[in-house]
Amino acid sequence: MRVRVEWRISLALTGTVLKYLSIPLLVPLAVALIYREEIFTFSLTILFALIAGHALEKLSSETELRMREAMLFVAITWLAVAIVGAVPYLIAGVGTESSLAHPVNALFESMSGFTTTGATVMDEISYERHSHAILLWRQLTQWLGGMGIIVLMVAILPELAMNGAQLVQSEAPGPQLQKLTPRIAETARILWFVYIGFTLLYVIILSTLHFTGYAPEMTAFNAIAHAFTTLPTGGFSPEANSIAAFSPAVQWVAIPFMIIAGTNFALFWYILRGEGNLLFRNPEFRTYITAIGTFSALLAGMLYFGAAPSLSELGGTTAGAMENSLRQSAFQITSLLTSTGYATSDFVAWDGSGKLVLLFAMFVGGSAGSTGGGIKVVRWLVSLKFLRREIFAAVHPDAIRPIRLGGTVVDEEVVRSILGFTFMYLFVFVFATLVIALDASRIGYSLTPLEAFSASLATIGNIGPGFGSIGPFGSYLAFPDSSKIVMIFLMWIGRLELFPVLVLLTRSYWRS
Amino acid sequence: MRVRVEWRISLALTGTVLKYLSIPLLVPLAVALIYREEIFTFSLTILFALIAGHALEKLSSETELRMREAMLFVAITWLAVAIVGAVPYLIAGVGTESSLAHPVNALFESMSGFTTTGATVMDEISYERHSHAILLWRQLTQWLGGMGIIVLMVAILPELAMNGAQLVQSEAPGPQLQKLTPRIAETARILWFVYIGFTLLYVIILSTLHFTGYAPEMTAFNAIAHAFTTLPTGGFSPEANSIAAFSPAVQWVAIPFMIIAGTNFALFWYILRGEGNLLFRNPEFRTYITAIGTFSALLAGMLYFGAAPSLSELGGTTAGAMENSLRQSAFQITSLLTSTGYATSDFVAWDGSGKLVLLFAMFVGGSAGSTGGGIKVVRWLVSLKFLRREIFAAVHPDAIRPIRLGGTVVDEEVVRSILGFTFMYLFVFVFATLVIALDASRIGYSLTPLEAFSASLATIGNIGPGFGSIGPFGSYLAFPDSSKIVMIFLMWIGRLELFPVLVLLTRSYWRS
Ligand SMILES: [K+]
Ligand SMILES: [K+]
Repeated sequence: MRVRVEWRISLALTGTVLKYLSIPLLVPLAVALIYREEIFTFSLTILFALIAGHALEKLSSETELRMREAMLFVAITWLAVAIVGAVPYLIAGVGTESSLAHPVNALFESMSGFTTTGATVMDEISYERHSHAILLWRQLTQWLGGMGIIVLMVAILPELAMNGAQLVQSEAPGPQLQKLTPRIAETARILWFVYIGFTLLYVIILSTLHFTGYAPEMTAFNAIAHAFTTLPTGGFSPEANSIAAFSPAVQWVAIPFMIIAGTNFALFWYILRGEGNLLFRNPEFRTYITAIGTFSALLAGMLYFGAAPSLSELGGTTAGAMENSLRQSAFQITSLLTSTGYATSDFVAWDGSGKLVLLFAMFVGGSAGSTGGGIKVVRWLVSLKFLRREIFAAVHPDAIRPIRLGGTVVDEEVVRSILGFTFMYLFVFVFATLVIALDASRIGYSLTPLEAFSASLATIGNIGPGFGSIGPFGSYLAFPDSSKIVMIFLMWIGRLELFPVLVLLTRSYWRS
Repeated sequence: MRVRVEWRISLALTGTVLKYLSIPLLVPLAVALIYREEIFTFSLTILFALIAGHALEKLSSETELRMREAMLFVAITWLAVAIVGAVPYLIAGVGTESSLAHPVNALFESMSGFTTTGATVMDEISYERHSHAILLWRQLTQWLGGMGIIVLMVAILPELAMNGAQLVQSEAPGPQLQKLTPRIAETARILWFVYIGFTLLYVIILSTLHFTGYAPEMTAFNAIAHAFTTLPTGGFSPEANSIAAFSPAVQWVAIPFMIIAGTNFALFWYILRGEGNLLFRNPEFRTYITAIGTFSALLAGMLYFGAAPSLSELGGTTAGAMENSLRQSAFQITSLLTSTGYATSDFVAWDGSGKLVLLFAMFVGGSAGSTGGGIKVVRWLVSLKFLRREIFAAVHPDAIRPIRLGGTVVDEEVVRSILGFTFMYLFVFVFATLVIALDASRIGYSLTPLEAFSASLATIGNIGPGFGSIGPFGSYLAFPDSSKIVMIFLMWIGRLELFPVLVLLTRSYWRS
């Protein structure tokens, strides 16, 4: 086993990804042509992607990645793509008052896109201020990020785990994705097919609502723009008021699609193969649905009985209004639990208990093998089973009781690794909260503890909105640049499930 | 192995403890005589303790405890003692407007005392409202609780771990307490000797300050009252303004004594035996001191540069005042980190970042083998080493790297058990936060998320004060009774390190 890291191979492969990035960059270019906007921005970005990609590709002609090079490739690629993705914001921002003209803001917005976080630093989201091309590019970055995550979850991370690294064991207890089809590339293609299929279905349903009069605001542009950010649990919207800008019918339709986006995509493949019964026998899916249902019911009751008293404009009054309470509750819970980050209500104005319920939902995360972020349901499931066993072990010290998931025994190494991930996630989240709070204190920017907590959680969990100034209709613009850089880092490592980035920070990765 | 739980043996032993409780009850009786207050309250309580103790003792004549009976004994005893300890509050409260006349409040205050939590539900702490005897009894409950914890940590929990239960492994990586002397009872006596010695030393130093004019308010009564609640990391004070009622000299002296209270008492025994060098070679002690120093330095800087702008009355202005910034910072950090809970400043008024630093200090906890509550330093140490190893393992999947503490390898079972505890603690804390928030919402009592978080953390961690209405100069009185009962439960299980109580809630403890 050679130990030196062949970083050239990783960078060369990153170069290939950058070159391929020029293809989807044609989409906003086409949008610019359709809306008769300037085409300079995206033409130049395409050129930049091709040149940068080509230059990196020159570094090595090898394409076989070993474990360490694969980790480096994953980490560097997400960063490089975010940098290239920031170029249009910078070019389009030149000479305007757009906050995205600032490099840190541009990178923040781009990283937030490609990591499907959905946190924004735009001062004003409007067609007066920004072109259709830029606003659609922002949506598209999330859809591309979602495709990247599927490859990452299906092809790369399990591959590293198969090498014994056990980086991410999230797949292991669920359906064995890599066993769906003999070859991993084939699996990725199948799941992309599911992903693209649901995106198209969503566009069709939204457009149907529009043409039948149930969704006056949901134009074709809006339908595509939102389909681009629903399936990847992204949350960006070209509307400043997110999904509150649309009719209740649209809001109700968005809920099942957010649920789909947070579900293990392999399960849909089973359904397509006629093995749909596997869906409800899957322990993660059952817990996921139960969690959404329980949180929603709880919150709906609270809203109905007045947990959102000052709510008037966005979302409307829920107290005593059954349908609205249910819809606001189910929408916000699904959105935050799956890490999508859309909103139909300014939950910043809800009372303390209502906010707490949302905060807890934010800790759950999507399912393994989905585009959802956060700790993920299967990890909570294993962690809670571990805790139950610890109580049992206190009474029966000599008993050996394996942890089971859906009838199969979870390997103790996997259990340990899941505990390690969950712990690491909580630790980085808490540590980052402190850093963000201290950084704000340094420049005298007033930040409540809840704001600091949610800023850290919403970025590492790739959720998007938080509480206070960073609420669903607010922005991260007011944070100092240093805090924004910390959050760019959080979005990045959160999306890559921590370890592929964290190992790069250790000496033993590079030296031994 | 017989499996049925012989609960009669446990209860009989609890009866013996209740009988012994009548001895310290003579102290407030004596105080009542000295201050010419009514002696009815404590005479009746002594009678009650003797009768209840005697009745329970009748249940069984056996004294040998097996593992399950020991767990039951520990859990029941703390509850029974708290109930008897609440009797004086109830009797003295009859016919007065004291909030302690309400049974739930009385039990809350008593449980808060015996678990050395220091959270109060008294509406007014003053000699006009309460007798010296009652106010000293409140202090004494904490000192007795501290003695109980020492026995628990030294004699009972390690004994259960020796049976293989590995209930609490906190001792294991530190100095092996049970090996200090051949017999456990002897060890407990030695540590009681250290505990009583420091209590006396503290009274002497405080009284010296008083007689030399450095502490005008620190009368003999106050010196004893505060010595009773410093060494057990208790935090109760007969002064409504806690330690803010005393001179800076008193505040500076309290800091090292709080640090001592949070230190593994076995280390002092080493010092007495002339092996003082072991103190600074002890990894937990080093981390503990480093944590206090780092947090204090950080906060002192923040206070100096204005993190407590609205601070005027209590604690005084810190901005630009070096000594005051240092003192306020070191005092509050030491108090909250060790879970003592005294205050010299109304930190509820500090800015968001200042409060967050305090909140994080509250998560640390004291050392193993101390009277401090919380997760405890050694558990964090092992948990962080585990995380570091997880990163290492991601790169070196096949390498076997044991976790070391002070040169010795920590058994993997112990590591697992520590992770289990830390996780369980965080889980119960978060779950209880939600329960408290929902309960408040139910009755329309307005509670911020930070208030709910701190209420849960301050009670399960046996810390005492939190943020908002339950700040250091506030009280828990406004919570609904149902929430208070939840918090009584939290104080109880937090003090007993969760598992001895949690196992009682499982069917497998009673049945198999
Ligand atoms: K998101
Ligand atoms: K305390």
